Amino acid sequence: MDINGTHYRTIWVEDDGWSVGIIDQTLLPHEFLIARLTTLDEVCIAIETMQVRGAPLIGVAAAYGLALALRTDASDKSLLEAIERLGATRPTAVNLQWALEKVRAAVENLVGEDRVSAAYAKAAGLADEDVSACARIGRHGAELIYEVAGGKQDQPVQILTHCNAGWLATVDWGTALAPVYRAHDAGVPVHVWVDETRPRNQGAALTMWELMAHGVPCTLVADNAGGYLMQKGMVDLCLVGTDRTTRRGDVANKIGTYLKALAARDNGVPFYVAAPSSSIDWQLDDGLTEIPIEERSPREITHIVGRNGTEVQTVEIAPSGAKAANFAFDVTRARLVTALVTDRGLCPASCEGLISRFPEHSS
Amino acid sequence: MDINGTHYRTIWVEDDGWSVGIIDQTLLPHEFLIARLTTLDEVCIAIETMQVRGAPLIGVAAAYGLALALRTDASDKSLLEAIERLGATRPTAVNLQWALEKVRAAVENLVGEDRVSAAYAKAAGLADEDVSACARIGRHGAELIYEVAGGKQDQPVQILTHCNAGWLATVDWGTALAPVYRAHDAGVPVHVWVDETRPRNQGAALTMWELMAHGVPCTLVADNAGGYLMQKGMVDLCLVGTDRTTRRGDVANKIGTYLKALAARDNGVPFYVAAPSSSIDWQLDDGLTEIPIEERSPREITHIVGRNGTEVQTVEIAPSGAKAANFAFDVTRARLVTALVTDRGLCPASCEGLISRFPEHSS
Repeated sequence: MDINGTHYRTIWVEDDGWSVGIIDQTLLPHEFLIARLTTLDEVCIAIETMQVRGAPLIGVAAAYGLALALRTDASDKSLLEAIERLGATRPTAVNLQWALEKVRAAVENLVGEDRVSAAYAKAAGLADEDVSACARIGRHGAELIYEVAGGKQDQPVQILTHCNAGWLATVDWGTALAPVYRAHDAGVPVHVWVDETRPRNQGAALTMWELMAHGVPCTLVADNAGGYLMQKGMVDLCLVGTDRTTRRGDVANKIGTYLKALAARDNGVPFYVAAPSSSIDWQLDDGLTEIPIEERSPREITHIVGRNGTEVQTVEIAPSGAKAANFAFDVTRARLVTALVTDRGLCPASCEGLISRFPEHSS
Repeated sequence: MDINGTHYRTIWVEDDGWSVGIIDQTLLPHEFLIARLTTLDEVCIAIETMQVRGAPLIGVAAAYGLALALRTDASDKSLLEAIERLGATRPTAVNLQWALEKVRAAVENLVGEDRVSAAYAKAAGLADEDVSACARIGRHGAELIYEVAGGKQDQPVQILTHCNAGWLATVDWGTALAPVYRAHDAGVPVHVWVDETRPRNQGAALTMWELMAHGVPCTLVADNAGGYLMQKGMVDLCLVGTDRTTRRGDVANKIGTYLKALAARDNGVPFYVAAPSSSIDWQLDDGLTEIPIEERSPREITHIVGRNGTEVQTVEIAPSGAKAANFAFDVTRARLVTALVTDRGLCPASCEGLISRFPEHSS
């Protein structure tokens, strides 16, 4: 997407032909800075500290991490160690494992320089595939928005989203926000209610930032507000992402997603989940018991980063010594999901629904 | 309750015999400071800026506000104007109107000094009544905790609460937290999951502070986490307060309460609401359409107060120019409430249930 007229992806190979450029997402919305990753270590840290985040982007970043590791040492041992280290950075999003497997398959029968260049090529291919998958999700999901718009007589379609499943969470376009950008660009009036998404505030920091940069009307609300908005008829549809989708359509997404799905059901509001192929874990059935849920540092709850004038500061918002727990994802059961918006089109959140779009997994 | 061994209420008449002392709750948990209110204006500002907050405490503060207004001018005109001004400070909690009516009834047939002293006496009486009502809620609600504890073999009873319905929200003891203090003091192991309660963070700033000060085990979580905790079986019961309870048992409480009630129902967790008599609005039936919901400044969403070392600072956490909406309460339908814990005992959240405890309202 464009930032002040310049097109950016969230990750790219720098002009030197090997180092990896990223937008440092821990500094947004306060500062827009590019970071340059040159080693496996730096990629692991970038994923762990969420300089890059969002399931699809994590996958592509990990692929480039493998390329950087192989550039230093193209041996099998190096490959396996790098896969293990990258695979352990964040447990919930399956795209990470998916991307590592793709790169492994592409390089395991090669050696030396060939292995390195194949890894870079595969990482670039995964990045391009992600852009294309997100663009397709945008086209399919926009139909849902057009349908609502038809009955609204130029009143904006009211969309609620949680966390950031925008272009910053992917290589470009986004998953949940791709349909929003597409509808907005097509001249269909939309307005997005943006959950701030504590504790990391991806909604306030990233979703608001990217929607505002693109000129999409949006309003920030506390995570607590979504139920009220739906009770009062102020939401036409919910649209969120997923970090891991099981075979039967359960979805793990940013903590708090489940609460919005419950409110949507209680108020008859459709609840859509944008699920790229790369987010589907065909090995799992029961999301609640089988998907590993990351627990992050309590400091993300007790402290917060903000701007005081021009200075970016971290302040403590809880009493000194307060104990905090920081579960990063929750699972929304398929029964609460109106439909999945995949890159192959919409489908019911069920085994049959997913298989109808991905028959190659019907085994 | 005690702070470092000294007993405090949240509001009192100072040694001068007329000015009103409060704990300034906008500074907690960073600073513990007493403020002295000397005029109607100061009381209105204290309520609007939430130096005093919590439905029961707002009621008592408003009563003292009337006493201060009458001390300056004991005329009927002054009385009516003060009632109007105080009544407009915050729209959702009915205790405010309730307390103003009580004082009006006590003083309207008096004049001059008699009117002033009757207003002070009534305010003091309402404060004492609140302490006594909260103590009774504590006794009745503790039975619910004892019941769960019986089956847990010394494992702590896991309680989730939202916002602050502790002693800081009342004159003493609290509503939702009164049973927790009572059970804890009786040696029954309890642990409280505390929702941080964005945007004003009453959970992080006030509930954590008062539970920690009293030595009750507690863990701070993001508002988003409650659904996960309940899905995973980590919550035995939810216990929250109410700012206004309708005749049929709908409750308006801090924004986000409704989402926790939905999660409780979805996971079979009991959801209790501590409802003092003063919170019941016998004029209203349908909470969703009839209770006025306060909308506060967007700045409470885009900015946050925290501690940087020893300095207390306000930082901006959203992009510059971000639009935000700040609805302060939502309504939880009676159907989602397992029982109301009133100062006269438990009852179903229904017209029949409430009338069984308050037969004088059966007309």
